[in-house]
Parts: sequence; C-alpha cells; structure tokens
Amino acid sequence: MSNIRHALTVKREDDFAKWYQEVISAADMAEESGVRGCMVFKPWGYGIWERVQRLMDDRIKEAGVQNCYFPLFIPLANFEREASHVDGFAKEMAVVTHHRLIADGKGGLIPDPEAKLEEPLVVRPTSETIIGDAMARWTQSWRDLPLMINQWANVVRWEMRTRMFLRTSEFLWQEGHTAHADKQEALEETHRALEMYRACVEEDLALPVIAGEKPENERFPGADETWSIEAMMQDGKALQAGTSHYLGTNFAKAAGIQYQDREGTQKFCHTTSWGTSTRMIGGVIMTHGDDDGLRVPPRIAPFQVVILPMLRDKPEDEATLAYCEQVRAGIAAQFSLGEKVRVLLDKTPGKASAKRWDWVRKGAPVVIEIGSRDMENGKVAAIRRDKLWNPETGKLANSFPQRDEFISGISDLLEDIQNSLYTEARDRRDANITRGVTEWSEVTEFYKSNGKYPGWIEVQWSKPSGAVLEKVVEQLKEEKLTIRNVPRDGDDADGTCIFTGEPAVERILIARAY
Amino acid sequence: MSNIRHALTVKREDDFAKWYQEVISAADMAEESGVRGCMVFKPWGYGIWERVQRLMDDRIKEAGVQNCYFPLFIPLANFEREASHVDGFAKEMAVVTHHRLIADGKGGLIPDPEAKLEEPLVVRPTSETIIGDAMARWTQSWRDLPLMINQWANVVRWEMRTRMFLRTSEFLWQEGHTAHADKQEALEETHRALEMYRACVEEDLALPVIAGEKPENERFPGADETWSIEAMMQDGKALQAGTSHYLGTNFAKAAGIQYQDREGTQKFCHTTSWGTSTRMIGGVIMTHGDDDGLRVPPRIAPFQVVILPMLRDKPEDEATLAYCEQVRAGIAAQFSLGEKVRVLLDKTPGKASAKRWDWVRKGAPVVIEIGSRDMENGKVAAIRRDKLWNPETGKLANSFPQRDEFISGISDLLEDIQNSLYTEARDRRDANITRGVTEWSEVTEFYKSNGKYPGWIEVQWSKPSGAVLEKVVEQLKEEKLTIRNVPRDGDDADGTCIFTGEPAVERILIARAY
Repeated sequence: MSNIRHALTVKREDDFAKWYQEVISAADMAEESGVRGCMVFKPWGYGIWERVQRLMDDRIKEAGVQNCYFPLFIPLANFEREASHVDGFAKEMAVVTHHRLIADGKGGLIPDPEAKLEEPLVVRPTSETIIGDAMARWTQSWRDLPLMINQWANVVRWEMRTRMFLRTSEFLWQEGHTAHADKQEALEETHRALEMYRACVEEDLALPVIAGEKPENERFPGADETWSIEAMMQDGKALQAGTSHYLGTNFAKAAGIQYQDREGTQKFCHTTSWGTSTRMIGGVIMTHGDDDGLRVPPRIAPFQVVILPMLRDKPEDEATLAYCEQVRAGIAAQFSLGEKVRVLLDKTPGKASAKRWDWVRKGAPVVIEIGSRDMENGKVAAIRRDKLWNPETGKLANSFPQRDEFISGISDLLEDIQNSLYTEARDRRDANITRGVTEWSEVTEFYKSNGKYPGWIEVQWSKPSGAVLEKVVEQLKEEKLTIRNVPRDGDDADGTCIFTGEPAVERILIARAY
Repeated sequence: MSNIRHALTVKREDDFAKWYQEVISAADMAEESGVRGCMVFKPWGYGIWERVQRLMDDRIKEAGVQNCYFPLFIPLANFEREASHVDGFAKEMAVVTHHRLIADGKGGLIPDPEAKLEEPLVVRPTSETIIGDAMARWTQSWRDLPLMINQWANVVRWEMRTRMFLRTSEFLWQEGHTAHADKQEALEETHRALEMYRACVEEDLALPVIAGEKPENERFPGADETWSIEAMMQDGKALQAGTSHYLGTNFAKAAGIQYQDREGTQKFCHTTSWGTSTRMIGGVIMTHGDDDGLRVPPRIAPFQVVILPMLRDKPEDEATLAYCEQVRAGIAAQFSLGEKVRVLLDKTPGKASAKRWDWVRKGAPVVIEIGSRDMENGKVAAIRRDKLWNPETGKLANSFPQRDEFISGISDLLEDIQNSLYTEARDRRDANITRGVTEWSEVTEFYKSNGKYPGWIEVQWSKPSGAVLEKVVEQLKEEKLTIRNVPRDGDDADGTCIFTGEPAVERILIARAY
C-alpha cells in the first residue's frame, strides 16, 4: 500500500468546529438540505443511526418497555394546560395553521385562506403532553401499572443556529414514558433508564460517560429530578448524551393520569421520561474522529470490514474478484461482538487506493485490499482504522496476514478495536478532569491558561437553590461554563462550597458544553 | 379449557366496517388520538408494523438500496416547480406558517405574528421533490449510478374522512427513490421493487396479491407508469397494498438530476419511486381477521407463542411458573421461518381464561395454558389461532401435546399457520374473481345480485385513453367501481372491449376498493 496520506484539510487542534464539519462531509455522513435548520442523513450517517437505534431498541425492549407511535401534531390546548411545560417549550416551535395550498394566480402557491385551522397544531417538540393524554386513558387500576412505553420519532424545535447532528430544527430520537404506582418505583425506573443509556453509550458507541443528577437550573421543565450522562469531546467540551427525568406527579396531575390502588383509592401516577437522539452521533464524531476522518466503533459500524479488490481491467480481474468473494463469505460467516460480522465487498468503479481513503475517512473499522499477488500468496493487506499509523515509522500500519488467519481472527480484531476506542477515549477523558480545585480563582485561571481545549473541573458546592443558584449560574456563564451534573458514582463532599464558602454537600462537574 | 366463546359483538357478514373498527379495539392495536385525522399506534399494532418494517427493510437492503433520511419540511418552491406534481398533491397538505407561540393574554397561546415564516413550509406528503434536489447534487457521472435510496418516515396528507390504518392524515411508510442511466434500467428497477413488494406481502403478511399496471387515470402524478399490488379483502373490496412508479425523466428534468455518460455527454436520469405504508396492516386485519378478532401471520406477529400460567394464588404457583419458564426457554431456543421463535410468558395479573381471550382477539398464532395438572402430566394445553374451532363439534379445537413434542414441533406448527393463512386467503380471493364477463350489463347485474361482498370481475378492454377513458371511468364510478390493474401474470386478450366494442388489447380487474 502506498503511504501517501490524504488527511483532512483541517486539523482538530487548529479549528475543532471546522474539523467537525469536514469530517461529516469527508465521511459522507450528512449534508445541509436547503431547508432551514434541517439536514439530510446520507447512507453512512443514517446507517450509523440505524445501528444505534437497533442496539438501544433491544435494550429498551429487554426491560419490558413497549414501542408505540403517537401523532406528529399536538393541539395548542395540550401546551396551554401545563404552565411549566409552556415556559420551557412554547418558545420556538413549528406551527401548522392551514391544511391546503392554492395557486396565488402568479404561478406560485399560498396557504388557502379558506383552509385555516380553527386551532393551530404544533409539530411535536417532545411528546409528554400527548402521551400523557393516552396514559390517562390507559391507566385505570393498579393492574395497568407500570405502564412503560417508548417512541422512535422525529421532533422539531426551531433553532436559529444549527450544527449538523448536534443542533438541528428537526432531529430523530427516542422518548420513553412510564407511569408508576409510587415514587419509589418511578425513581427506580428513572435510574434504570439512565443506567441503560450509560451501558449502551459506553458499550456500543464506545463513549465513556459520567452519569449524574442535573442541578435544579438544568432540569427538564416540569421534572422533579433530571439525570444525565455526560461525555467529553476532544476539545474538552461536554456533550449531554442522554437524559432521564423523574416527573413526580406533575404531568400526571396536568393530564389526569390516575389509577385505583388495591384498596380502591384513586391516586395520581408518578411518571418518568427519558430520551436520546441523533446528537449522540455528533458525540461519536467528536470523540473518535481524528485528522484522517471518522473512526466508527465496530458495534455501530454499518460495515465493520470493507474489502477492496485491486483490479487492472485485465482478464485476471475475474479470479481476483472470485477470491475476494471467498474472503467476503468467510468473514460474513464469523460472529463478533454478539452478531454476524458485517462485511462489504466494494465493487464500485475506481482505484483501490482512492477507495481506501474514502473508507478511512468514513471510519470503517477494518479495510482490506486484495490484488492478484495477494491472492497468489494467500494473503490480504489489512489496516485497522483505529491504529492507522505506526507511531515509530510514521508510516501506514498495514499488515499482511494469511487469509485464513485473518478470517478466523476477525472476531477478536473487531472486539479489540471496540475496546481500544473506548479505552483511548476514557483515558483522555480521565486525564482532562481536574479535581481538588477549591477556589473560584483557580477555576478562572484554569480556563485562561489551559489552552483551547481545557477539559472539566470537579468542585464541591453547597447545592444552593433559588437566587443563590441563579448567581452561581451567572458567575459560571461569564466564563462560558455550565454545571454538567453531580456524578452518581463520585466521592462524597468533604470540603467547602467554592461559590458560597458554606460546607459542601456534593461534588459537581463544571465544563464548557455543546 | 372452557368452551365459552367471547366473540366480537359485530360479525363480518353483518357490518364489515363496524367489525373492522371492533377488531382494532378488541385486539388493542390502535385508537383515535383526539388530534384530527391522527391515530395512536398501541404496542400490538405498532409491534406488527415493526415486524413488517424489519422484513421489508431486509429485502430493501438486500437489493443494495441504502436508507437515508430527508427533512420533514418541504419549501413551497419545490411544489411550484413541478406543475403535474402540484396538480396531484397541492390540495390537502399541512402548512407551517409560524415558528413561535406566544401567550395571547387570555391564558392561551397563539402563533407569534412576529415569527411568521417568509416562505411557508409544507409537511411532506411524499418526498419526490426534496429527494430529487439531493439526487441532483449526488449524481454527476455514470459512476454514481444507479443511485438507490429509501426512507422510512411519517408523511401527512390532510384527510377529511379517516379510517384507522387505511386513511389517516399522518401515516408511516417507506419510500424508495432511484435514479438510473437509462429507461431500460429504470424499468427493471420499477419491476424489481414491485416483485419485492409482492414477495414480502405474500410471504410475510400472507396476503395474496395481484401485481399489475395501473391504467392511465390511476397513475401517480408525474409518472409514466404506475404498477401496483392489489389484495382482496373479505368484503370483496380491493386494497392497493403497494405501488411502484417509473417516472421517466419527468422528475429528473424538474429537479435537474443529470449525469455525464461514458462519452462525456450530459443526460437526464430516469427515476423510479415505490412505496408501502401502514395501510398494509389494515389489509392484514381485513384479510385474516375473523369473528373472534385478529389472526396475525406468524412472520409478522410480535409474539408467535404466548404462554399463560394458570395460577391459583397458592404456594404451588411457584412450581407452575418455574415449569412455564422452562417451556418458554425451550421454545425461545427454537428457530422457525428463518428466525428465533418469539415467545411471551404472560405473567400479568388476571385469570388465564380471560387472558386467553385477550390473546385470541389479538391474534397471537399459538396460545398455550399451563396449570399444575398439565405440569404433573408433562403436557401443555394449546390452541392455534387460525383454526380455533373444531368444525365438526363447534367446540374449541384445543389439543394437549406432550411438552417436549410441542417444543420440538413449534417450528413446523408456525410454518403451517403461516401457510394456511395464506392458502385460505388465496382460495377465497380466487373464488371471488369472476372471469369471462363480456357484456357491461353482466357487470351491473353481478354487482346487483351478488350480495354485500361481490368480489372482482376480470374483463377485456381496448385500453382507451383521453376522453374515452374518462367516460369509462365515469361509467364504472356510477357502479362505485374502479379499475385495479392490468394483471402482470394474466392471460392475453382474445375478445372485444366491454366498454368500446373494439378489439381488446388486455385484461383488467375491476372492483370496489378502499
């Protein structure tokens, strides 16, 4: 293989935001659609989402949660009835006001004034209120509980500044909604969902995360508790990769979600909701991408192994292709990471060396090239995307294993790539969380002096609320900082609050964030 | 098992439309949402859709078609640019005109007049135009062809009279869109998609269909050819279960989908599109349902086998449950119809006899009950949903196989149910197509004298177009009849046209339709 490198034009260290855009386009994942705030998911980007969806859906179903589908449109009345919900969401939403188009007489089309809706409809920004209506119909008795449902859907939140995968007006997600007899059970479900997210995101997407509770000011509108998983990107910023909310009886009271308990008493349910979205793909890019493009963890790679035949427009090509097909079938019969190995024999026109770089940019975990000489020697030329360069020679770290060894070893190889991407990200994350900071001045100094990508700081605080919390939030905002969460598995507090000087009650992570 | 029957309150023969609604509610598949024209898919209804989706998606991917995702919103300009498209679709669509809600000062919310969109957005009724934009960007050279993409999405067509699964304002579907170098290849793709639909709908949904070309008046707006698969419901009406369109260069010219051929000449692509929707589930209900509820073909049943433990609130229950769990694990380890058997041990509260009827109404293919006596005898009590009643005795056709025999026989049993549902539907369909009708008066007489559910008639015609065709359509409309299609696999014409008296050129199926 030639050692000529076709890296991206922008490096992570030079301009992380530009690099991010370039990875998306170089890996052919997605593009702007021309429709304000909406993107087009291209096959490679959507294929990764389909993998995430399937793995997450298996986990959701395993917990006994059932998938449903609710209307895209939500009547205004649903938003009006729940004041705290309105405060949080009523701002930027797509509103349907007409149900017909007519010719404007000038060659164009306009909404038909005769077809104005009596009550405008909102394109769902989230489905708590409409699912709440259904839950109120479906829960009558304690026998109907717990009610655990999930929806895979598109949602719309009008966004002024968009960034592909991270912030778009329309995005794809799943939203779980559950109703329970009491607080205890609802809290358990909140934590089950959070732990399911942690496991999926760490094990499948190879993104190390810190699970914890959000402070009061970061709670979902109407929630009693909001929990999140937070991942660190390579620029040191935090990305919230999933949230799980304990909603108390707030939504139940607004929607009338009640049940009769074993003693015949009418009670309000305790509800939860939890969601993850296509934003996770943004997290995969910013965690695993490098200056050559994307690196996709094997579990979520649409193709884990790509075979490139080296053809020369000569009669021998037929034999080479037949040999490639044998290798393909051999690999396709292997199991790795609990599933059949997904392998593509890429027969599209073009030179193998050019196509190799296309697949490097896309981040296929393993790429192999096979020419007539390899065939004669019973070998393949292989690269693993996560360790593309030999750190000593600076050259492409390709290897030339025997065909049969390569095939029988593919299961271990993919497992190793999955693990090593996770370990690399976890080590980097751990190296970039600074602990033991006790003075606010250390915080400002840290973000001033630690370069472009400074990472996170763990501090202790007294968990203020109300006006004191507001002041803390303002103070952080001046440094472009936010509180990510109170780590679930963190140490107890043993010092004083960095903001108030009072005795600390817990530890929090602060960071710049997406 | 007790022989007391809990049939539906409405029989098919008495009121087919009411029966249809009752099946949906008795099988707990779906319900009205309270949002105009939109339904809620409940777990059993959505679970069936998920199965259909997965089986269809496997077939789509096998053909090398790649999934993408395009924006929900389509700018008006896309509809304006393609006149024939506008004629067909511009009538009833949901139009987004504002991107913000504000308080109206009276406790309610209104669209913010300050947040009016400069150009209204249409909620996609289908995605030809927006996908056409993308195709124009993605096809440059012959090397980029064929371009074959598919999208699973929700679409909205404002409907005044709705019926669950069959006609709702929002529905779920897949839409395939492909671009090709020439007419020949595009026509091949049109037929490949049609044949894929036939195979999926017949093999997976067990709905026998007739594949054929739609007459000119039934073509998709902008298409050169429209092909369909048509299924017969138990009331003798036709249901179009899928369509495949050859779009010629019409959409390519409107969207600028061009490529440079091997000689360097710029050419327009020939495109196709093809779609199936949640409407197919309506077809499953109206084909396989009976007066006891739904019968779900095993391939698309979320659960193929349901185990009901017969518990008595006594200490023995534990042993019964453990035995049931053994049976469940034994069944779950079996393969049938190419997949692992999907089995549910239903531990929800309630008597097994009542729960049995819930599962009969839902149409789970096999339901077994296990009590302490069955356990002692090493047996299970089983019913197969497709043959619930013994035709001789009129009693429940339950059987009491040995546990191990039942487990090892489950694969064959499910296959047999899948096949027998298909055969039953095909035989009924075939018995209800009348051929050899040569006079129009025979047609009117047929529909007058053949009861409520008269079936289809095959006639020969001269394939008129323009004004003559319009007259034919009118003539049929007076009898509430439509032309379904020209069967692909039918006999050649050998007579005269029933409408014009001219020599016939092909045979057509006429029927009342959904």
